[in-house]
Amino acid sequence: MNLLNMENPVFEVYAIAGSIVVLKVMLQGWMTVYRMLSSNSGLASPEDLQKGLINKDPSPEQLEVNDYVDRSRRMHRNDLENIPAFLAAGLLFVAVDPALWLAQVLMYGFVMARLAHFVAYATKRSHETRATFYTIGSMIVIYMVVHVLWLALS
Amino acid sequence: MNLLNMENPVFEVYAIAGSIVVLKVMLQGWMTVYRMLSSNSGLASPEDLQKGLINKDPSPEQLEVNDYVDRSRRMHRNDLENIPAFLAAGLLFVAVDPALWLAQVLMYGFVMARLAHFVAYATKRSHETRATFYTIGSMIVIYMVVHVLWLALS
Amino acid sequence: MNLLNMENPVFEVYAIAGSIVVLKVMLQGWMTVYRMLSSNSGLASPEDLQKGLINKDPSPEQLEVNDYVDRSRRMHRNDLENIPAFLAAGLLFVAVDPALWLAQVLMYGFVMARLAHFVAYATKRSHETRATFYTIGSMIVIYMVVHVLWLALS
Repeated sequence: MNLLNMENPVFEVYAIAGSIVVLKVMLQGWMTVYRMLSSNSGLASPEDLQKGLINKDPSPEQLEVNDYVDRSRRMHRNDLENIPAFLAAGLLFVAVDPALWLAQVLMYGFVMARLAHFVAYATKRSHETRATFYTIGSMIVIYMVVHVLWLALS
Repeated sequence: MNLLNMENPVFEVYAIAGSIVVLKVMLQGWMTVYRMLSSNSGLASPEDLQKGLINKDPSPEQLEVNDYVDRSRRMHRNDLENIPAFLAAGLLFVAVDPALWLAQVLMYGFVMARLAHFVAYATKRSHETRATFYTIGSMIVIYMVVHVLWLALS
Repeated sequence: MNLLNMENPVFEVYAIAGSIVVLKVMLQGWMTVYRMLSSNSGLASPEDLQKGLINKDPSPEQLEVNDYVDRSRRMHRNDLENIPAFLAAGLLFVAVDPALWLAQVLMYGFVMARLAHFVAYATKRSHETRATFYTIGSMIVIYMVVHVLWLALS
């Protein structure tokens, strides 16, 4: 049985949810670039202090950690701790042929939890708010791989 | 020929090994949360100093690096440097139809190497011990992609 | 229709490009190890200051950030922000059955952009040079998932 194709509605849900979260993680990189350029700080490497198109007025303090820029990097790191795991877990989940409604709830739920986490982190909401959305996303990934293991090992 | 499905025993090995390492990386996040809450330190963002359910007695030192919490973050970073690469390499390896025993040795070997790396890092074993398990896991991923490249390019 | 197999030339392109970038990310880890050992600095954990095969003459400064070693870690982090996303985006892109030439341009283009980014970062080229190659790689991944979303949602 071939489930990993776009004619399978569950795979299509995975393709949509997976594409959105890949887009999310790529755009997080651009948010860091935007914040770095607009605040003219939070540079990563000593050679970035060269005068040039990106940096018209270099100064050594530009290499210091700046919360405005570093916040976007922390959001990115949080993505990297969750999104690649979701992408792999989701593909394996499709391969065990789950109910379509369950795939929709889990995968679109993950997308929404991560977007809410993004908003909570970007707007400096309380640790409790951010942790709630992190937990939802994390639990969804954990559920998916436990479901796969359960079926594979039984 | 369709190899990426649960009727293929090699894919089943990949699904089991892949699910375990996804679970491992997700639980590493929860180990960081546990250590952060139990030690009441190693917070990541300035807004986490707000008084609340998670932080009943805030103080500025909570934002400083704490080895107990940071160790779990370093273990997580090491996972991110290895596990997503394994997940992709493993899927490609299944697609070139390797012998089942070889897939079992490599994929379960990777799982065991990463679990041993986890124990060595968490219990502060010597750099040599940790490096040995890192090397085994890394060599397995490198072998898998070289095997895929060899077949694809020949 | 089963597209995720080595008889599909587009999947073969993905397998080759994916294997090369997995290899790249794994070798970046070994570049960090090489720089750490050859400079005898940039260690990550307090227990690495134990005398042993890896560290024959320990001193506390070995735990300080060293640009030679940290540069390789920053290159690695940049890989982790791009390569797992490419691996997932590429697989989804194969599943929507694109033209072979388009897959070749995008996937081999990504490989070349990341190798050029590696050279630019390792040889401390200007921020503008590094940013150019980052942008090419990033735009390719973004294009692939937007293409998938467009087809899946239309």
